[in-house]
Amino acid sequence: MSLKVALLGVGTVGSSVARILCDRQPQGIALTHIFNRNVERKRANWVPASVQWTSDVEAILRSDANVVVELVGGLDPTGVWVRRALEAGKSVVTGNKKLIAQDGVELEKLARKHKAHLLYGAAVAGGIPIIPGLRHGLAGDEITRIQGILNGTCNYILSRMEDGAQAADALHDAQKLGYAEANPSEDVDGFDARAKLVILSRSALHVDLAQSEIACKSITGVAAIDFEYARELHCTIRQISRVALRDGQCYAAVGPVLVPKSSPLAWSRGTENMVLVGGKYGGDVVFSGHGAGGHPTAVAVVSDLISLAQGGSAQVEGAISAPAKSIPVSGEFVQRHSIRLIVHDRPGIIAEIAGALAEQQINIHAIFQRPGYQQEHLPFVVTVEPCTHSALRKALDHFTGKGWLAEPPLDLPILEAEV
Amino acid sequence: MSLKVALLGVGTVGSSVARILCDRQPQGIALTHIFNRNVERKRANWVPASVQWTSDVEAILRSDANVVVELVGGLDPTGVWVRRALEAGKSVVTGNKKLIAQDGVELEKLARKHKAHLLYGAAVAGGIPIIPGLRHGLAGDEITRIQGILNGTCNYILSRMEDGAQAADALHDAQKLGYAEANPSEDVDGFDARAKLVILSRSALHVDLAQSEIACKSITGVAAIDFEYARELHCTIRQISRVALRDGQCYAAVGPVLVPKSSPLAWSRGTENMVLVGGKYGGDVVFSGHGAGGHPTAVAVVSDLISLAQGGSAQVEGAISAPAKSIPVSGEFVQRHSIRLIVHDRPGIIAEIAGALAEQQINIHAIFQRPGYQQEHLPFVVTVEPCTHSALRKALDHFTGKGWLAEPPLDLPILEAEV
Repeated sequence: MSLKVALLGVGTVGSSVARILCDRQPQGIALTHIFNRNVERKRANWVPASVQWTSDVEAILRSDANVVVELVGGLDPTGVWVRRALEAGKSVVTGNKKLIAQDGVELEKLARKHKAHLLYGAAVAGGIPIIPGLRHGLAGDEITRIQGILNGTCNYILSRMEDGAQAADALHDAQKLGYAEANPSEDVDGFDARAKLVILSRSALHVDLAQSEIACKSITGVAAIDFEYARELHCTIRQISRVALRDGQCYAAVGPVLVPKSSPLAWSRGTENMVLVGGKYGGDVVFSGHGAGGHPTAVAVVSDLISLAQGGSAQVEGAISAPAKSIPVSGEFVQRHSIRLIVHDRPGIIAEIAGALAEQQINIHAIFQRPGYQQEHLPFVVTVEPCTHSALRKALDHFTGKGWLAEPPLDLPILEAEV
Repeated sequence: MSLKVALLGVGTVGSSVARILCDRQPQGIALTHIFNRNVERKRANWVPASVQWTSDVEAILRSDANVVVELVGGLDPTGVWVRRALEAGKSVVTGNKKLIAQDGVELEKLARKHKAHLLYGAAVAGGIPIIPGLRHGLAGDEITRIQGILNGTCNYILSRMEDGAQAADALHDAQKLGYAEANPSEDVDGFDARAKLVILSRSALHVDLAQSEIACKSITGVAAIDFEYARELHCTIRQISRVALRDGQCYAAVGPVLVPKSSPLAWSRGTENMVLVGGKYGGDVVFSGHGAGGHPTAVAVVSDLISLAQGGSAQVEGAISAPAKSIPVSGEFVQRHSIRLIVHDRPGIIAEIAGALAEQQINIHAIFQRPGYQQEHLPFVVTVEPCTHSALRKALDHFTGKGWLAEPPLDLPILEAEV
């Protein structure tokens, strides 16, 4: 018996899903309904005449479709539709990271209760099969950490800056190319990546984190000068979303990080996504590819549909080998940091900085000062031995309001073996 | 009901599988039997007393185990054991690339006939979940090409040479470290990678290639000087296994290739494996990680067992969306090449080379000659516009026996958009 598939939402991803289903006609899958507001303007002549088009979501929920593909996005009213579909025993395939990050555990329970399935391979890193890879290929390992480039917009901006662009120009181009919204906060401030990190933490580490528990730091503080110093440290800068389990404690954070050039995470360019998964037995595995875009995300949706058509009963569970558990979470990775300062130069500044750091038991590792800058607006970088972010912030807060400080200091963690 | 698992072979991978099963105790999986020749010397005190140890394979085949994990390797007698297990309705999980490359299609048919399953995620690139990734995460795409670093030994040797080691030293170290056999032919001549490419072609492109149809070129012709010229071309050299479908024709080859530094395939170091999968809809996805080693390969085996325990009925098929089909195969990728020549320099050589190439309608792209070599043993490199390998070989054969030729020329394809 074929799965009858109702598609909710015919935007970029939705129309690409329809296109792949019509082109490839995967065995056991029939597209039967398409829902969109003002659906008439969406009608396409390459869709078989047998497909019913509707602007009435109730018609979908009452229909005989056994799978609802939800590509409308957002929490409201989409969350209600997804719940009602599951309660009606319809399986749901979705790319809705916000909904799954916030309510995924509850929705998976609901699905199980109604013998339906909930699949969301498209919710994280669209075209990269990270969720199926974790569930099927790495289920035998005990995953202890994830480091990911989960937001293509930030990666585009930061890799453009690595190549010499100013922050404002890179953002402007990202907006012009449709990678970033007019208000780019969701991307640059880390909220988009954080939702994906919550989903990955559940799928890979079997821990259930609330988004609000994870510290986000914006990439907007990163300037062209930071890439110059990053190069001196044989690093680049990327927005990294990471989570690690150690000694029963969970560490998680999202924000700009100095990434050594030797790390695969430094190789990502443009809007590419990349996820490094570290396991107790298998070591590190890296997945990379197109994280977004209509076609790549649609591939993830259609792959989930094929799994359902082939009877993927195991796949209803977000956490295959253990139910997601709550666990205390901290952003206090113990790690090296770099601190970029811009000062009105005068004698004694280094002594003052060294003193404030020493008060927090933080050791200076090295001081870098590139030539060619004016004394009145002099950038330099101090790197420090492993410490927590909160200890470092205490030391840096000491400088607030100092007359010699030309701009607020920027501290960046340096990625390496963690905690 | 728990799966009862019988383990055949307690070498590096087998003992690691036993270790993970005993440590993690995945739900629904019970290790019940262990087989090895002279099994007594293999007994370990961390294995539960309930496990039966035996040197009699018949005891396994007659037992109530419902899954046989085959980690003995080779074709004979292992192939017979696998067939008999499947005929007895036992599912088989194996890392045996030779057996799956040669007889996989037949064994999958046999499994289906007896309502058993055959899983072999460990047969290709051990710790990298490429086969589950293809089957579950990329099933929605139409895969058109694969480029892979599938042999860790070759990658170790070539990345050591990239760092300045001589070929002989790199091979010697690989042997000392246990990466290469005393007779390294299986690795360096490409046969190991070719078996894996056959399996990937079946899983991803749904084409059934015979190993003998795929041209293998040894990496042994690659010398230190080739890395010097590779650098001038902004390339490195890697053993690349590749397959591409285009216009109903299948192209496949294994051998050393010039890889642009901008390609992810150039980033692989040491014994790492990497697979680039190109799809019609999702574009390129890259998987990388530890391709071999006890623990990473064991993770793949245990992941397959977990799939079985969760009722992975769909997973019996090597080609999920289409049965593997036979298709003509050619090694004649049309692509740029570099030709490295070492000559006793005298006037007229370039003219002679240009003439031979022109006769085959091959255009010279550039000529590179690094300073600092003796005229009596002068290396230089000619790059040519896209052509087939056979046309190039015809031109090069023209030089055989020429007095000015100090060593046989080495031609390497240059990786780029293909065919």
